[in-house]
Amino acid sequence: MLSTNPSAQLALDLVGVFVFALSGGLVAVKKRFDLFGVLVLACAAGLGGGILRDLLIGDIPPVGISDWRLLSAATVGGLVTFFFHPGVARISRFVRVLDAVGLAAFAVAGSLKAVATPGVAPVTAVIVGVLTAIGGGVIRDLLAGQVPEVLRRELYAIPALLGSLFVVVSAQIGPLHDWTLWGAAGVVFAVRLIAVRLDLNAPTPLRSSSNSLT
Amino acid sequence: MLSTNPSAQLALDLVGVFVFALSGGLVAVKKRFDLFGVLVLACAAGLGGGILRDLLIGDIPPVGISDWRLLSAATVGGLVTFFFHPGVARISRFVRVLDAVGLAAFAVAGSLKAVATPGVAPVTAVIVGVLTAIGGGVIRDLLAGQVPEVLRRELYAIPALLGSLFVVVSAQIGPLHDWTLWGAAGVVFAVRLIAVRLDLNAPTPLRSSSNSLT
Amino acid sequence: MLSTNPSAQLALDLVGVFVFALSGGLVAVKKRFDLFGVLVLACAAGLGGGILRDLLIGDIPPVGISDWRLLSAATVGGLVTFFFHPGVARISRFVRVLDAVGLAAFAVAGSLKAVATPGVAPVTAVIVGVLTAIGGGVIRDLLAGQVPEVLRRELYAIPALLGSLFVVVSAQIGPLHDWTLWGAAGVVFAVRLIAVRLDLNAPTPLRSSSNSLT
Repeated sequence: MLSTNPSAQLALDLVGVFVFALSGGLVAVKKRFDLFGVLVLACAAGLGGGILRDLLIGDIPPVGISDWRLLSAATVGGLVTFFFHPGVARISRFVRVLDAVGLAAFAVAGSLKAVATPGVAPVTAVIVGVLTAIGGGVIRDLLAGQVPEVLRRELYAIPALLGSLFVVVSAQIGPLHDWTLWGAAGVVFAVRLIAVRLDLNAPTPLRSSSNSLT
Repeated sequence: MLSTNPSAQLALDLVGVFVFALSGGLVAVKKRFDLFGVLVLACAAGLGGGILRDLLIGDIPPVGISDWRLLSAATVGGLVTFFFHPGVARISRFVRVLDAVGLAAFAVAGSLKAVATPGVAPVTAVIVGVLTAIGGGVIRDLLAGQVPEVLRRELYAIPALLGSLFVVVSAQIGPLHDWTLWGAAGVVFAVRLIAVRLDLNAPTPLRSSSNSLT
Repeated sequence: MLSTNPSAQLALDLVGVFVFALSGGLVAVKKRFDLFGVLVLACAAGLGGGILRDLLIGDIPPVGISDWRLLSAATVGGLVTFFFHPGVARISRFVRVLDAVGLAAFAVAGSLKAVATPGVAPVTAVIVGVLTAIGGGVIRDLLAGQVPEVLRRELYAIPALLGSLFVVVSAQIGPLHDWTLWGAAGVVFAVRLIAVRLDLNAPTPLRSSSNSLT
């Protein structure tokens, strides 16, 4: 059923790895880690989501540690941030935008690979897409000692969920075209950036009376 | 040898997922995460232990991302805590009790599934049971930025170890009955709660003279 | 092609597990965790890297939860640190040295096992070696709530990379001899310790003008 061009899978993986590596590198620069700390965090952020995906769907060893193109993309991403990072004051904003691009590329790359794997149910493919998308950022934030972006205020996992759903539902209907994939990625990116720009947040829990005095 | 009713496995998994999802959601509420942060932490806490178990024994994709009943239990757990969470002042106590229930359900569910998997040695089944039981809570605490419960003072991993041992030893002796499983879960829950109530702690390291002045 | 004595693999694994368990136990002692917290952190540090390796190369269940000798080494390591830990003031230095020994043993043990696994490319074997070496320490530091050593200043991943490269390149050239393995481990240990002693650090990112005033 799936006639997707393997090059679309590779392109999405490469884009995701590279931009998440940039985001990981920038977080490391902000924390004043040294060159190798920057490279390690860039690789963890760039490759972590895909490695998690491959562990979950049984593609061993994961492409994140076997495909030299992905390894190179992560390493180059780390080096670029180390040597050409923008002013530290502007890093946070950059990380947000790069994060949105990575979220988009990996939501699609993850759900696409999962849906094409025999024995993986559609609901699983959607979740794998989301985990691929958020995994690298979560690993980046845990290693850097900060609460993961996905748990902080602002819509984060929802755009990834929409994009993964888009891909998996499309795959149920018929052959996936490249433009379907890029469309899905565009939706993720747009929804995520709108959420950041408009400072859209999901509701927070009601404060209960018992802590109103504290 | 194992004639265990699959419904016991499912029931234990469901109970474990639901109560750990509640515990994850409550930690998120306490940290003032938004709705999606609550759902993410509920799912991570509820499904993390079982996913770890399935990765370790090679059941790919893990049921935690493929069985809609478990996914629903985690999601409902997150929603329940978001909308009906008790006063924040009482949350810590609630998390402790729910944690004990989850610890019990998952120690049994984990060792039960492992011991029924071909190629898994008894000692491995015991450890898998412990890791299933403590995994979700560890992931919850790491994501929420707090030192995992299992490392803080108070007996935590030991009840899970007792319950897993109980299941694995019983499975060596003869067919497992449902009441054996619920008995094992009861032991875990009781030992854990007694430890919490009596504030039983394992011994701490002796202070050495070299830091007695600090 | 690989005629490596299996006992070399086991010896390296045992050494790595034991010294990383000591390092994990010492971190736990420093944080004033109780006996079981010390044991949990010792096991996580000692067994984590090897479990990660086995998940990545598909050796399920991982030896870290199935070989009683490794489990015993980790447990004994935890008990030793609990009862015989040195003055807290001296712990940090001890952790550094033990960490270097573990880094050496695991870089070689990891790359050796990976290079002998069918379907694992040389580049993957090198990376698996590095991840085996740094994995336990990263898990230890995350659980203990501190930023992983590998991201802090000082050459850390590089010695592991050198050792893994040494093993994998040697395996390409011809049969691996035990002295090749111990030589590779010696290189890792020496480079790491020299880095610690001389306080050698990798370069840090240039400060950009935009934060020079803050």
